[in-house]
Amino acid sequence: MIFRQLFEPLSSTYTYLLGCEETGLAVLIDPVIASLDRDLREVQRLGLQLAYSIETHIHADHITAALELKRKAGSKIAAPAAEGVLCADVNLEEGKPLQVGGIVLNPLHTPGHTAGHCAYALNDRVFTGDALLIEGCGRTDFQQGDAQALYWSVHKKLFSLSDDILVYPAHDYKDRHVSTIAQEKKRNPRLGKNKTLDEFRAIMADLNLPYPKFIDYAVPGNKQCGVCPADLPENLGKYCKQMTESPQG
Amino acid sequence: MIFRQLFEPLSSTYTYLLGCEETGLAVLIDPVIASLDRDLREVQRLGLQLAYSIETHIHADHITAALELKRKAGSKIAAPAAEGVLCADVNLEEGKPLQVGGIVLNPLHTPGHTAGHCAYALNDRVFTGDALLIEGCGRTDFQQGDAQALYWSVHKKLFSLSDDILVYPAHDYKDRHVSTIAQEKKRNPRLGKNKTLDEFRAIMADLNLPYPKFIDYAVPGNKQCGVCPADLPENLGKYCKQMTESPQG
Repeated sequence: MIFRQLFEPLSSTYTYLLGCEETGLAVLIDPVIASLDRDLREVQRLGLQLAYSIETHIHADHITAALELKRKAGSKIAAPAAEGVLCADVNLEEGKPLQVGGIVLNPLHTPGHTAGHCAYALNDRVFTGDALLIEGCGRTDFQQGDAQALYWSVHKKLFSLSDDILVYPAHDYKDRHVSTIAQEKKRNPRLGKNKTLDEFRAIMADLNLPYPKFIDYAVPGNKQCGVCPADLPENLGKYCKQMTESPQG
Repeated sequence: MIFRQLFEPLSSTYTYLLGCEETGLAVLIDPVIASLDRDLREVQRLGLQLAYSIETHIHADHITAALELKRKAGSKIAAPAAEGVLCADVNLEEGKPLQVGGIVLNPLHTPGHTAGHCAYALNDRVFTGDALLIEGCGRTDFQQGDAQALYWSVHKKLFSLSDDILVYPAHDYKDRHVSTIAQEKKRNPRLGKNKTLDEFRAIMADLNLPYPKFIDYAVPGNKQCGVCPADLPENLGKYCKQMTESPQG
């Protein structure tokens, strides 16, 4: 399998490009519109045909490239069914693998960061979205976030995978690229180290994070598969337009 | 491929078990005598036949299980040719892959920690021994250690691998399990972050590490593929015997 971990620096997002060597079919997990051209070039350079863009959840920190990829590369849009993305071509559910050539992604419903969040397991690795980050996790105070749900998603769905399974998160802010289930069990300061549910709830309640600065346009824009909503205030509209004009070219 | 990252806590060594699903043949990279029984059980539990034990180098911090594995499991002993291990059945050299069923290990001569040290590249991963650790590297002040040689081994042989290649080191002392080439280029405080050769030499010269406490029995014992040398002083002899009696069962 062809595998590329691509980085989008504005939102510190990892986009994953997976390609089937036999069929030439590919998917992008969590593509970001700011890196649209870079990602399309990479797909082309590798001689692949983009079959799907796949979301782990409705993002609040960037605009997805899903709709633009559909327009420019003809790819279908896949998103977790429970996120209720009406413009998705395929709704993903746990127990129903998505097969693209020889690539078989198994959705794991992992709510807590958002209610419909899915991780995707594939052979020796799992794409954990914002449910489990390296020594961290996504916030739980917006988008039907729920610390208790996230605790059980990680402990029952992700920490029950084999110790050697590679953890590929949707973000890292410190240039870390990969971890393992065993490593997160041992080192994750929020969810590992035998942290109890009550300890985790207390940690998440005490984070005192600022209001997410892009959420007011990113969430409605991503519910439409990647647009700037028409009714934005001028300053947000201008910023969103910049973000969707593929500044990384 | 079957893959297990096994940990030996006395020397914080990672031993890697690789198994070919088609042929049932397996190898152990850097097995430790203290974990002999645990490793043999794991090989058996997975229904594998151990074909080789493989050393990255002559270790100074533990006794290899190579000879005992040969006695108990019939495995051949493979070691880097340049380490001059006379009891090895197979001498490994760069440019001459070792094939075990569907597993093809490509030796990379990476001197600097020891003169004959080899890393082993395999598909999307590289077993870096003590040449490259996660945010660190092996010491260069014993066993023909050479900071300049290690710098070029890492920069020319390992950092020239693709960014997404997984780095599996021979040790970690902080429960980290895996890294990538890209991550080490960015985060390794000794060898990454565009460190120059002169900066690296100064870092290694200033480490002020204590004398390696096991080196006087481990190096001669490992040159004999894993025994306690006969002529040890009583205290070392007693300790070595304890270490080779598989205290972890």
